[in-house]
Amino acid sequence: MTPLGVIALSISKTTKEVENGRPDEVTLGQYLFDCLKSEEIHEVFGVPGDYNFTLLDTLEKYEGIQFINGRNELNAGYAADAYARLKGMGALITTFGVGEMSACNVIAGAYSESVPLIHIVGSPKSKEQKEKKLLHHTLMDGDYDVFRKVYGNITGYTAILTPENAELEIPAAIRIAKEKKKPVYLSVAIDLVMKPILRHNIQSSDEKITKETSLRAAIAHAKEMFETARSAVVLVDMLAVRYGLQDAVMRLAEEMNVPVASMMQGKGGFDESHPNYIGTYGGPFGSERVCDIVEGADCVIIAGHVKSDVNLVKYTAKLNPLKTVDIQPEFVRVGAAEYVNIMAEDMLFALRKIGYLQPEAPVCNRFPYDVASGEPEQPIAAATYYPRIQQMLKEKDIVIAETGTISYGMSQVRLPKGAKYIAQGGWQSIGYGVPAAFGACLADKNRRVLLFTGEGSLQLTVQEISSMLDYECKPIIFILNNQGYTIEKYLNVKSENQKYNQIPDWKYTQLEEVFGGDAFTAKVRTNLELDDAIKRAESESKGKLSIIEMIVQDSMDAPEYLKRMWDYLVEQEQHQN
Amino acid sequence: MTPLGVIALSISKTTKEVENGRPDEVTLGQYLFDCLKSEEIHEVFGVPGDYNFTLLDTLEKYEGIQFINGRNELNAGYAADAYARLKGMGALITTFGVGEMSACNVIAGAYSESVPLIHIVGSPKSKEQKEKKLLHHTLMDGDYDVFRKVYGNITGYTAILTPENAELEIPAAIRIAKEKKKPVYLSVAIDLVMKPILRHNIQSSDEKITKETSLRAAIAHAKEMFETARSAVVLVDMLAVRYGLQDAVMRLAEEMNVPVASMMQGKGGFDESHPNYIGTYGGPFGSERVCDIVEGADCVIIAGHVKSDVNLVKYTAKLNPLKTVDIQPEFVRVGAAEYVNIMAEDMLFALRKIGYLQPEAPVCNRFPYDVASGEPEQPIAAATYYPRIQQMLKEKDIVIAETGTISYGMSQVRLPKGAKYIAQGGWQSIGYGVPAAFGACLADKNRRVLLFTGEGSLQLTVQEISSMLDYECKPIIFILNNQGYTIEKYLNVKSENQKYNQIPDWKYTQLEEVFGGDAFTAKVRTNLELDDAIKRAESESKGKLSIIEMIVQDSMDAPEYLKRMWDYLVEQEQHQN
Repeated sequence: MTPLGVIALSISKTTKEVENGRPDEVTLGQYLFDCLKSEEIHEVFGVPGDYNFTLLDTLEKYEGIQFINGRNELNAGYAADAYARLKGMGALITTFGVGEMSACNVIAGAYSESVPLIHIVGSPKSKEQKEKKLLHHTLMDGDYDVFRKVYGNITGYTAILTPENAELEIPAAIRIAKEKKKPVYLSVAIDLVMKPILRHNIQSSDEKITKETSLRAAIAHAKEMFETARSAVVLVDMLAVRYGLQDAVMRLAEEMNVPVASMMQGKGGFDESHPNYIGTYGGPFGSERVCDIVEGADCVIIAGHVKSDVNLVKYTAKLNPLKTVDIQPEFVRVGAAEYVNIMAEDMLFALRKIGYLQPEAPVCNRFPYDVASGEPEQPIAAATYYPRIQQMLKEKDIVIAETGTISYGMSQVRLPKGAKYIAQGGWQSIGYGVPAAFGACLADKNRRVLLFTGEGSLQLTVQEISSMLDYECKPIIFILNNQGYTIEKYLNVKSENQKYNQIPDWKYTQLEEVFGGDAFTAKVRTNLELDDAIKRAESESKGKLSIIEMIVQDSMDAPEYLKRMWDYLVEQEQHQN
Repeated sequence: MTPLGVIALSISKTTKEVENGRPDEVTLGQYLFDCLKSEEIHEVFGVPGDYNFTLLDTLEKYEGIQFINGRNELNAGYAADAYARLKGMGALITTFGVGEMSACNVIAGAYSESVPLIHIVGSPKSKEQKEKKLLHHTLMDGDYDVFRKVYGNITGYTAILTPENAELEIPAAIRIAKEKKKPVYLSVAIDLVMKPILRHNIQSSDEKITKETSLRAAIAHAKEMFETARSAVVLVDMLAVRYGLQDAVMRLAEEMNVPVASMMQGKGGFDESHPNYIGTYGGPFGSERVCDIVEGADCVIIAGHVKSDVNLVKYTAKLNPLKTVDIQPEFVRVGAAEYVNIMAEDMLFALRKIGYLQPEAPVCNRFPYDVASGEPEQPIAAATYYPRIQQMLKEKDIVIAETGTISYGMSQVRLPKGAKYIAQGGWQSIGYGVPAAFGACLADKNRRVLLFTGEGSLQLTVQEISSMLDYECKPIIFILNNQGYTIEKYLNVKSENQKYNQIPDWKYTQLEEVFGGDAFTAKVRTNLELDDAIKRAESESKGKLSIIEMIVQDSMDAPEYLKRMWDYLVEQEQHQN
């Protein structure tokens, strides 16, 4: 992987602090946490281990940041990832070797999903590292750089901290995390954490700015494209969420009076209660109406796009690049031309001035799950529980959708105003959901957190329900029990009734008991039972965590989106043979 | 990390198979599993994911190897690691990106602990990889080599398999795993698994053999060293276990009539019921008698040694290299001289002929936990439960010791004849124990498996108890509940009452219920309760899994070894300040 480039340092400091080259009283650990705190990080997730004791001892006495104990490193990292999605940045502390190597999935996932996550590793004493001693938690070959090298492949930046370089490396890493929205890796020897840092006289450097000539050219080109257009559409995608472009996108859509759809990975990037919002674009698998509007538009503006198979709906999406304005964080494509050094926000602002106004109002006021169907005594099924989920959602809810059949269904559920939506749309690592709910609960204690997960995914990281109970988090957890890895059954059209897609049948509503906590739990099989459980959970969840196990009769129960995808995959398979 | 060197290929085949350069009917997947089966691998662990479907579909129809579903990749990998320790080799299947990145700890651990583990990854279609498409489960940058590069740092070999190279790469990888006792990484695109492989005309190459002149020189040197010796001792360490040198070591010890001790990481490398066995060498923290014999010997023969901080007892060990014959797998050190190209087994055999015979019989017939102390109604404590554990162990038991206070205690427990001992002596990743017990149960269905774990470690990977129930494994699981990460409290002498060492209090004896299984469970607080629970478990474990939760009153309850280590660490800390 190519490095993400050298970023100039930008640190503002008081006169007192600028004592060039002379140590003051701030230790490396304190400085590190000062930097995190100034990014609004007030919780740091992790697992203790003997090489991170001085980091955790510093944190235990440090005011303004609490250490949050995860049940293992993968889970702690997932929690930090969700926390970062809500707060703009998150941090994880692990121990050398055994700790950090359990978090590789987290960091690769944060890279894939563009989440700024600071991974801090406590390593053995610097003297022992220099002497290449064969310590426990190492590969027993004296190589103390090997795990940093591993992480070099899956982060935007890595550094080994010392008291001498801390004031350079920590801000550099944080800046890359913020600017590139990538995870970074910082390692520090256990004996250096409590050493005072060396102060440097650091000059602030300018923030990246738009090149005016480039912007003018892009806008001229876009204007030309829009001149003959009779219909346009705005699409929001993942990077629009990560770079906080939601407001700029909304204003543009309002001024142009154009409909807005979110891409599969961009869900939550536009206020879904807004009159201009038409739904999630899912090509031929999603809403037909949305597909028609998007694919029929003369011009498409797309903000923060990732050209993944998920967003491009297994490459069935019909989005013509020649009629598209593709706004990336730091450059823009208009048709076939690329214009570099344009900040997305500036482009979105400038587009408002090109004078395009769509005469007709956006035309989509029906969403796939608007109507709560199904008789009360009938068994629940995708067609009946997704509408009920849509109905129960409230303004400002934090909605977490685990990967699986449920993420396909949730992609089509209309979110209320101000809701936050968290899902690994591209990385799609099953097991993310439960720890993510934990992280979300701690990121914003005043908002309701709802987790939607299949039982298969839940089993991977179940112990974070214990952490939620331990930290008095009160999410509502919906566990879809469809008796196995149903999503995998849908994705593998080459074989049937695979034994490997079977999983053990747990007593999900007794989890809180075994974890030593108190929760509201319900097991539902019918629509009426689901309605009742939701009502109870809504009142109970003020006081405690809730678990609603939704048991479906048909283990192949799935949203329409997935059924259409399955038909398509079968057809593709037949073509190949 | 330097590569482990190019290994010549050695494949023997029937005439029919040698059809140079022409494909036959064996697919890549079948060939891969043929190779694993010929290494006595009959169970392959893993987690399904959409890029490994063709591997798992092949396996589902394949005779002689069963796919074993783990609850997550870390756990499946740990299980495969323990399986490899018992069977000589193990295998793990994960999916691209999200699956394999959850197993980094497993593979780094196998590297550190010298365990031959074959990690097989199913990757996206080769065409899509070539086109650098941005598929789900990728970093979204078109780089399909990045995860192999990650694994390049922590394996002995990596290869991307194709039908053309499979017959070269798979045997090469397996041979490196066997010869170097290291994990290897094989990745294969989902569309290539069912393609017939290309056959090559492969010439067998010779196995590595001892260089006679080198051996003669080493033996001459050793003989000289032993000439004036009045006492000698044999030490067995980790690599003696991995390279199967136990018999050769035993014969040498018998012919020389010398006492034998195991190093901390070498426990299980010598029959502990043998009259020559004196115990585990733990320097000043372990048995005083063993320390005296080992450190007072005129000559030391050490087989398969790893010079880790664990084995060298925080560098308090007094082992003089100038009076040591250090037998490594492929070379020998005698005093300060190194003799290369000597296979360990040949050296052990040749040493039998140097004519050293110790006149006095070995002198250690008391082991730390020989006497079951403690009144029946008294609370259990390290001093009372380790003797009871030692007493209950039977011939041929498989004993798994999780990292923590319990691994220090178990290191001093005398094992019965034929017992296997599994612990991550150097890597020490907490959470290894439960999945390792799962792997052990499947590796040998005719032996009793006993797991000794602290409750803190258990929480990291608890879901593999579900897998054990699911596969009808019947281990006896001892959970030491000492209310937190007690080991971490012992290792951090800089601070006290750390909040981060607290963990949630689970209802461990209800785990089997929530996992939907049946088990014998007992919660014990007194010696009598423990005696009763052990008796019951011994009879119940024939029919079901057993869980015995040992609740200690004092959360700082720990074996003597650890208390002495703590005193030493406190003293060191005071010296530094």
